Amino acid sequence: MILPNIETFIGCESSFEEASIVLYGAPFDSTTSFRPGARFGPAAMRHESFGLETYSPYQDRDLMDISVFDSGDLELCFGSSEMALSDIQKRAEEILEADKFPLLLGGEHLVTLAAVRAVAAKYPDLHIIHFDAHADLRDDYLGARLSHACVLRRCHELLGDGRIHQFCIRSGEREEFRFAAQHTDFHPLSFDGLEETVRELKEKNVPIYFTIDLDCLDPAVFPGTGTPEAGGVTFLELLEAIRTVAQANVVGADVNELAPMLDASGVSTATACKVLRELLLAIAK
Amino acid sequence: MILPNIETFIGCESSFEEASIVLYGAPFDSTTSFRPGARFGPAAMRHESFGLETYSPYQDRDLMDISVFDSGDLELCFGSSEMALSDIQKRAEEILEADKFPLLLGGEHLVTLAAVRAVAAKYPDLHIIHFDAHADLRDDYLGARLSHACVLRRCHELLGDGRIHQFCIRSGEREEFRFAAQHTDFHPLSFDGLEETVRELKEKNVPIYFTIDLDCLDPAVFPGTGTPEAGGVTFLELLEAIRTVAQANVVGADVNELAPMLDASGVSTATACKVLRELLLAIAK
Amino acid sequence: MILPNIETFIGCESSFEEASIVLYGAPFDSTTSFRPGARFGPAAMRHESFGLETYSPYQDRDLMDISVFDSGDLELCFGSSEMALSDIQKRAEEILEADKFPLLLGGEHLVTLAAVRAVAAKYPDLHIIHFDAHADLRDDYLGARLSHACVLRRCHELLGDGRIHQFCIRSGEREEFRFAAQHTDFHPLSFDGLEETVRELKEKNVPIYFTIDLDCLDPAVFPGTGTPEAGGVTFLELLEAIRTVAQANVVGADVNELAPMLDASGVSTATACKVLRELLLAIAK
Amino acid sequence: MILPNIETFIGCESSFEEASIVLYGAPFDSTTSFRPGARFGPAAMRHESFGLETYSPYQDRDLMDISVFDSGDLELCFGSSEMALSDIQKRAEEILEADKFPLLLGGEHLVTLAAVRAVAAKYPDLHIIHFDAHADLRDDYLGARLSHACVLRRCHELLGDGRIHQFCIRSGEREEFRFAAQHTDFHPLSFDGLEETVRELKEKNVPIYFTIDLDCLDPAVFPGTGTPEAGGVTFLELLEAIRTVAQANVVGADVNELAPMLDASGVSTATACKVLRELLLAIAK
Amino acid sequence: MILPNIETFIGCESSFEEASIVLYGAPFDSTTSFRPGARFGPAAMRHESFGLETYSPYQDRDLMDISVFDSGDLELCFGSSEMALSDIQKRAEEILEADKFPLLLGGEHLVTLAAVRAVAAKYPDLHIIHFDAHADLRDDYLGARLSHACVLRRCHELLGDGRIHQFCIRSGEREEFRFAAQHTDFHPLSFDGLEETVRELKEKNVPIYFTIDLDCLDPAVFPGTGTPEAGGVTFLELLEAIRTVAQANVVGADVNELAPMLDASGVSTATACKVLRELLLAIAK
Amino acid sequence: MILPNIETFIGCESSFEEASIVLYGAPFDSTTSFRPGARFGPAAMRHESFGLETYSPYQDRDLMDISVFDSGDLELCFGSSEMALSDIQKRAEEILEADKFPLLLGGEHLVTLAAVRAVAAKYPDLHIIHFDAHADLRDDYLGARLSHACVLRRCHELLGDGRIHQFCIRSGEREEFRFAAQHTDFHPLSFDGLEETVRELKEKNVPIYFTIDLDCLDPAVFPGTGTPEAGGVTFLELLEAIRTVAQANVVGADVNELAPMLDASGVSTATACKVLRELLLAIAK
Repeated sequence: MILPNIETFIGCESSFEEASIVLYGAPFDSTTSFRPGARFGPAAMRHESFGLETYSPYQDRDLMDISVFDSGDLELCFGSSEMALSDIQKRAEEILEADKFPLLLGGEHLVTLAAVRAVAAKYPDLHIIHFDAHADLRDDYLGARLSHACVLRRCHELLGDGRIHQFCIRSGEREEFRFAAQHTDFHPLSFDGLEETVRELKEKNVPIYFTIDLDCLDPAVFPGTGTPEAGGVTFLELLEAIRTVAQANVVGADVNELAPMLDASGVSTATACKVLRELLLAIAK
Repeated sequence: MILPNIETFIGCESSFEEASIVLYGAPFDSTTSFRPGARFGPAAMRHESFGLETYSPYQDRDLMDISVFDSGDLELCFGSSEMALSDIQKRAEEILEADKFPLLLGGEHLVTLAAVRAVAAKYPDLHIIHFDAHADLRDDYLGARLSHACVLRRCHELLGDGRIHQFCIRSGEREEFRFAAQHTDFHPLSFDGLEETVRELKEKNVPIYFTIDLDCLDPAVFPGTGTPEAGGVTFLELLEAIRTVAQANVVGADVNELAPMLDASGVSTATACKVLRELLLAIAK
Repeated sequence: MILPNIETFIGCESSFEEASIVLYGAPFDSTTSFRPGARFGPAAMRHESFGLETYSPYQDRDLMDISVFDSGDLELCFGSSEMALSDIQKRAEEILEADKFPLLLGGEHLVTLAAVRAVAAKYPDLHIIHFDAHADLRDDYLGARLSHACVLRRCHELLGDGRIHQFCIRSGEREEFRFAAQHTDFHPLSFDGLEETVRELKEKNVPIYFTIDLDCLDPAVFPGTGTPEAGGVTFLELLEAIRTVAQANVVGADVNELAPMLDASGVSTATACKVLRELLLAIAK
Repeated sequence: MILPNIETFIGCESSFEEASIVLYGAPFDSTTSFRPGARFGPAAMRHESFGLETYSPYQDRDLMDISVFDSGDLELCFGSSEMALSDIQKRAEEILEADKFPLLLGGEHLVTLAAVRAVAAKYPDLHIIHFDAHADLRDDYLGARLSHACVLRRCHELLGDGRIHQFCIRSGEREEFRFAAQHTDFHPLSFDGLEETVRELKEKNVPIYFTIDLDCLDPAVFPGTGTPEAGGVTFLELLEAIRTVAQANVVGADVNELAPMLDASGVSTATACKVLRELLLAIAK
Repeated sequence: MILPNIETFIGCESSFEEASIVLYGAPFDSTTSFRPGARFGPAAMRHESFGLETYSPYQDRDLMDISVFDSGDLELCFGSSEMALSDIQKRAEEILEADKFPLLLGGEHLVTLAAVRAVAAKYPDLHIIHFDAHADLRDDYLGARLSHACVLRRCHELLGDGRIHQFCIRSGEREEFRFAAQHTDFHPLSFDGLEETVRELKEKNVPIYFTIDLDCLDPAVFPGTGTPEAGGVTFLELLEAIRTVAQANVVGADVNELAPMLDASGVSTATACKVLRELLLAIAK
Repeated sequence: MILPNIETFIGCESSFEEASIVLYGAPFDSTTSFRPGARFGPAAMRHESFGLETYSPYQDRDLMDISVFDSGDLELCFGSSEMALSDIQKRAEEILEADKFPLLLGGEHLVTLAAVRAVAAKYPDLHIIHFDAHADLRDDYLGARLSHACVLRRCHELLGDGRIHQFCIRSGEREEFRFAAQHTDFHPLSFDGLEETVRELKEKNVPIYFTIDLDCLDPAVFPGTGTPEAGGVTFLELLEAIRTVAQANVVGADVNELAPMLDASGVSTATACKVLRELLLAIAK
């Protein structure tokens, strides 16, 4: 008998029951204000992952050694951010209820809000570690408060001052940089201060949500994103930063803002896949 | 003294006061369910129009002979369809109040709803002539009732049975084709029946809103659109159909669904520009 | 509990047991002599099919009404044509043994040979109806006898004179055209003669293998193929020809030579999906 | 001993001495006012011609049966039209002196002027048959009289009234259409009138320069050109028109305005190659 | 009343009178010898600048705090370098007469000559600081002395020895490197020596024309240029070098050689926009 | 008399007799398992090399000072690896017999095996220096032992332990890394250890085959390759490593895995050309 065609991220072939980590895709980009296309990110990563090895020479670990279930992409409504966020949050809650690690693949960065709502409900003392080129701290964007440009501001409303740790930020309105100076733990332009931050959070055993906007990477190696910002971190710096964060108590995570059609060479997708492989290997217990 | 850089569609350089036709762009595509990018349509048309002549050998008329004002693109909110529609409708109302012809450049097809709301308020006996590959008659799309896939259904709720005349439709759910059979004047696959329809509407001097989804064209000549459907009409068939419709009492119009980034050759944008030139020359009194 | 991510061509969600038609993908293009990339054809069709409706207004039928199982892509060896053909043939045999209709998605045209070997073993009096821009009748191509350019010649060796019916052919060496004149039922440039051919085969109730090289289409609507040949048939002509062939006793089929990366607009893939939908609806009993 | 790498258009491997037709490339596009890139046309045709067969089923002739020498591309100065034209003219004169047929590959359409200067010097009663989307009859373009947009106007200054026969023209300023009405034999939009024109010229045995701007083709099949104009002729119509013209006394020719980078699918280049093959086979004695 | 559509680089919305800096675009690339397309640079920067923030975290300054007028693109003749240069020079002179800072957006690098002619007329002791991958010191290029490859050589003829300071140069003929060794202040491959050079020029209060060929950047982050040269400087190195130069008495400047169509990802244009923002903020008093 | 069109890599215009180095192209990629297109690498390098200077400021040497013959591309069979390898090996043998340096342009990496077979026959104590992102040490790939993924494993069978020196490797199966640890001189991730390795080989005057898989470069500067791997070396690091290796007794070399169509910007091809120029200048005696 011939089996149906199951498509997962490479090496993520566990059943839901066996898995300790669950991937879920949120192909949503309705609030993207510049170049859309992040909706195609998770499917592209799944599809192109077959150009990737499951083995990481950086960590000397293999995806075949860990247990990950890939639940595919949610079918989300375009045109209503609240409906889309609600569906994403529900999926995150299902995963958390089963005591598994939810790893969200965006989509635009707004999808993070849905996951944070779910994770913060389970872990009220949640902190966020945020890698991004953009501060994402606007109060609204052309009237919309549910916007990729506001997502960390909405998270701040949930979590309060000093619980959001931002790194690599190199773009935003002056107002956002001022807000950050007062309300978040803000590390512009690079990963300076990350080791110390993680050490402290680890000592307190604080639960951490880890959100990676892939545009923290320099557009040289990651052009396939809606709002590329020159002056970013290198791929190897990002890998090291991920391994640093993974030493702490990470309880949920996401990787977002790959817009594969914007980089016809396929390098951005290949790089996103490798980031995800390294993240999975770093957080798997 | 050096003047600022005013950018209009070629040959549309009248002031608002002088103009009989007013172009307004709605760069919105938040509900696009497949490939986004129609938001870039109106700016691309304006920008690429400089590869076009103002003179039409088909009609032996020149844009320099008529009076068109190009008001540029509205700044619309991504992520809230109702807010975007409201801003578009307001602009259409301003133009109608000044007794000028509103010509909307989309964006995705949902923007038509805003214009139809404004035009139907002024002309309660409004009919719609609709050129499209898709019926756009769904009641909702994944829960959203404000969606490009539902826009003619929403128009039907405004206008009622027998007031919507659809041509070239070659894609939709079975349910939409059934709805059309009962509620609209439905002409699938081609322009068959257009001349007769227009003659009747003209005899009754009915006010007409004319909406052109450019994907009615065959993707051979118009690949730059979100959901291309093979088997469409030719460019010359569309030009002739436009001149046919223009003989009736057209009181508002739109041209939409150019997604310029999807056709790197630029042919789709050039073709859209020529459609707009021919439409302007045909409707100008 | 969350289910794994099953990816099929749209509307092809039957189980193997229930299905009367079985799709199987052969992502192989190692012998392509000009522009490779047909290996990505079947996955692209599966993935992009979600921009397609399941309902056909041409046939007033819906994929939801028929039973198709999509077995996904085979994992084939690049660099050994014989090994790849062997794996494809084995899959075709499995499907035929279960008395289901095998519908192969290529890949380059050489993959047809594997399916024909399997089908001819079951139906010794098999005929082939062949739509293509190229005759594919070379005896060898730079020494290789297993080559996309030789595939119908190899089929001729299996079936003999007068059993291969070729349509739309508009490219080849002089030698191939001479061979065709003597050994195949040859209809260059168009579908002229197709109705008559089908009527005769139907009358004799001959079993038919139906192979569609998508480059029979004009490159205007189907640029995404390795060796595009201007002067092809239109999409609507192809649809009509498919429905004509489907009236006879078709016992196996394939659709091949979509190279999706060569057409960044996505139109070629969308068109290929529609051809497959129409073919499925036409052959389903 | 190993031979150097000679690159010619496929099947054009005669020596200069043996050849009756000589190809020469003019990779120039400095006056292109919209999208440049025609400079890459002749090299792309030469390079991509290896995806083409040497045999034409349309004419049942083969390039291997005729004698064509490909002299490659001239090395032309960008930034001085007069210097570039002078170099092209010199090459045309060399070919004419050797009593061979000069077949120029552009480049932008301005290059035709250089060839016409050379050919008209040898044949003072020269006529021109001109296939194009554009009239190219401006007196100047932003001050430049040597411009692709003026090339037929410059030819008219050389040859005078009634000696230029224009077909398929569908774009230009009103002024150009007026000029044409008075001074050229003008056939807008299609090949209507071509057979009669050729019959008359043939009866008088008039020497003809035949210039094909490939943008006469519809952009559906030929998007790779600087100023695509929807509403053009089909590939098969062009082939037939070429065979018609070839019946008369053609003494020089060119094929121009392929801008290969504008059509990443490669279809435009493949189509241009086929046009050249058919032209060579039609004019070869 | 509805206002016309004024398009400027983001945040450059002053009137001419109020502005201290005036942007002017020169969409010219007729002498480009390899890949053309720099003509589209200034319009692309203006258009894509809306993906950029007006605030710079690098300088903690905002475009909203300074006064810049964007005069749009000149309409230049293709095919006559002297006519184009003359029009550019005239515009530069107008700006200088009004005692404003002229900031030219190219176009190919030849346009710099026009600006230098104007600026040197006002400031006879002018020096040039030149960032580029190429020396641009040829005496002629295939006979043309007005060529992008000769522009600094022409400037040298105006200014004489020791007044041109070149940085990052990594490509040229041997002859150009020899010329540079004797006649210019030459710093190949990097910005080594820039601080010292600027300190000296500042001490003497020498007026400086600052010309940035964006291909000084590594093609990793700036592929969208006609002749990319691996081994360039990073974006952050360029920003720092710009701030260094801005400390001296800069009286005119340009940014050139963005060819946006060559980088479909949009990263090159986004990077060029950011370079311009940082340059504006650095030179604004 | 007009000469035929000889196309070589820039500055490589010696005759075979005069030359000390002979370029030969192997346009083969039939075993590429992910994205094909390396077959187009050598022709693209030859063609695009005219955007390159012959002079290297890095080495202060010029291609015009050395003697290189470019024999063009072999015509290889797609679909039979053994036939293709045999033709490549034969060409390498011809070059070696004439006591010239064979410099192979791939093509996929499998082509190296053919050259190594020829070179090892002449120099039985051959060592290999291998720059690559991938270990290429699999025993088979989906059953094929002649595969790009196995090429160094096949070379190891020819040469034995300790004779293969691998650098920059950052991708492979765990098994390949284990094999390398036991059987090759393995330097993952960077060029660490290269100087020492070369010094030792130079002291022993060991003959060296030098194979450069261009994907050792970071995809930021070299996206145009089938399997890009983030985290690679920079262009300047590669240049320095090449000059280091060239100090030893290099007797054959290759540059491979450029897939030019995957990088529409042309940067990858331009970079490959520069790598080849620097390699030629470094190894020329």
